[in-house]
Amino acid sequence: MAHPLAGAVVDGEGAQQRRAIAKAITLLESTRPDHRVQADVLLTELLPHTGTSFRLGISGVPGVGKSTFIEALGLHLIAQGHKVAVLTIDPSSSVSGGSILGDKTRMEHLSVHPMAYIRPSPSSGTLGGVAEKTREAMLVCEAAGYDVVIVETVGVGQSETAVAGMTDMFVLMQLPNAGDDLQAIKKGVMELADLVVINKADLDADAATRAQAQITSALRLFSQHGRERGAWHPQVLQLSALRNTGIEAFWAAVVRFRQVRTDEGRLQERRRHQAMAWMWERIEGGLRSAFRQDAQVRELLPTISADVDEGRLPASTAARRLLAAFGIPGTDAGAGPA
Amino acid sequence: MAHPLAGAVVDGEGAQQRRAIAKAITLLESTRPDHRVQADVLLTELLPHTGTSFRLGISGVPGVGKSTFIEALGLHLIAQGHKVAVLTIDPSSSVSGGSILGDKTRMEHLSVHPMAYIRPSPSSGTLGGVAEKTREAMLVCEAAGYDVVIVETVGVGQSETAVAGMTDMFVLMQLPNAGDDLQAIKKGVMELADLVVINKADLDADAATRAQAQITSALRLFSQHGRERGAWHPQVLQLSALRNTGIEAFWAAVVRFRQVRTDEGRLQERRRHQAMAWMWERIEGGLRSAFRQDAQVRELLPTISADVDEGRLPASTAARRLLAAFGIPGTDAGAGPA
Repeated sequence: MAHPLAGAVVDGEGAQQRRAIAKAITLLESTRPDHRVQADVLLTELLPHTGTSFRLGISGVPGVGKSTFIEALGLHLIAQGHKVAVLTIDPSSSVSGGSILGDKTRMEHLSVHPMAYIRPSPSSGTLGGVAEKTREAMLVCEAAGYDVVIVETVGVGQSETAVAGMTDMFVLMQLPNAGDDLQAIKKGVMELADLVVINKADLDADAATRAQAQITSALRLFSQHGRERGAWHPQVLQLSALRNTGIEAFWAAVVRFRQVRTDEGRLQERRRHQAMAWMWERIEGGLRSAFRQDAQVRELLPTISADVDEGRLPASTAARRLLAAFGIPGTDAGAGPA
Repeated sequence: MAHPLAGAVVDGEGAQQRRAIAKAITLLESTRPDHRVQADVLLTELLPHTGTSFRLGISGVPGVGKSTFIEALGLHLIAQGHKVAVLTIDPSSSVSGGSILGDKTRMEHLSVHPMAYIRPSPSSGTLGGVAEKTREAMLVCEAAGYDVVIVETVGVGQSETAVAGMTDMFVLMQLPNAGDDLQAIKKGVMELADLVVINKADLDADAATRAQAQITSALRLFSQHGRERGAWHPQVLQLSALRNTGIEAFWAAVVRFRQVRTDEGRLQERRRHQAMAWMWERIEGGLRSAFRQDAQVRELLPTISADVDEGRLPASTAARRLLAAFGIPGTDAGAGPA
């Protein structure tokens, strides 16, 4: 293999492999252009060893109990013989360097377990950038034989969409009182969910049951894909991560989901779709970034933006003027995809 | 004025003005680069004469009665002294050259009225392109003194979002039975609505009343902006365009909306936001278009896409490779906005 880390990631054992994984992810997260070139070589080498794990996305507001749940689930899976990686997308990292998530010590038993690998969110970058690094880190973990990769995030900003866009199954965690106030559930997130989990169900059994009924009907009402959903219908489960109840039933549901989707061919289809969408998203991110960093554009942008904002210049004329400054002359922007 | 059409659009009268408007819009719709340059000159000249009209977006599925409603509304407004322009975004035009909408004769009285100007959808281009032309045509009509501009579309694809993104108020038309099957209402459209109209309410008064109640509670549940909505709460009205009942109450609601939003400063804010969003959308459209038309990209894209699709190449590596071919080397796409 051309990259020295690839062998150690794929075939390494124990502490040696862990160090290789950590180094590989650090390389991926580097913004140095030469590192980026190396990282691409490494990723391409690792790719044939990826794809056999199950990618599970988990989201929920702060306080819903994600860490406790992932710790309980991870230990349960390890007891069954799985190797579990936990990655995090912390949307706060792009602002503050990370505060909502990313604290390894949240999962005290899992984080020291030899069969688990926990990696906090990259500590800087836009959500798109952070998501890219996480997606690549996921491939590293898969190549290293972690057959369950959990990607967690909090219900803030667009991070759920990013997580749902890189996983096989997206799980939304709720508190028992959430059903009473469906408005509190962010728009667009409910219909991403393949499964909803009501945690802390032991605290108020009545509220949990009510929430389960309400969320079930909301899922039915706003099931985005209609018949496209196929044979799987989003479900709502109650559990208590703290008391370790319901974890087994949760995993049984995940296994059922995986089976149904594999049989339908949708699991592979989702991954292929995700990869292509990811490629185009990164291309568009790169184009935007190059545009905004262009010297000519930077010089013109303030004046032109002000002219548009104050109604002196039509928006479409402004766009054409800036595109011309970037070296795309006479663009009929209308020819681009909508 | 530097462009010969500008004077005739702004100060022309009767048939002369109508011809000038038609010529101006034809110029805007032209894809010839020299026409585009002229169109930008013209638009910039017209811009100071725009912005005083009210921009009303109307959407609904085929058969809901949009034409009948717009005809009734338009004649009602003209009787009150308004000049009414009706523009159309037909998402089918990009595929078939237009079939769902765009038939002038649908509004037989309004289309021949001297105080009305009706222009069908541009007959080709992507939705983004068609929407751009419509947005520009709206400015031409405004400069010509049309103080109510109605932009209609059907509930297909993303056209509602485009219309809501260029108007002051977005109205969704429904049939009386729609409430029975909220699933039939496309996701994401309901929360764009500032007002929902149940047409053909005379056909089944019970169903219309039931629909009104159900849609009202759905609007409350999924009111996207929460407190950002300000003092206006989306409403649901019943009417019958065919029997010409409820038109007056509809317009009274529009006037109330306009007043509330103007007082809050939100009407201007929405327009400024729309203009900036529009500029960036057109820039991104132009970038995408230039990228996809680039000779180097076109040569590499099939192979690279296939490699990503079949899992031989990581999506992010593929993106970097294609960006480099486009002349954007060493891009850390993560630096771009999410």
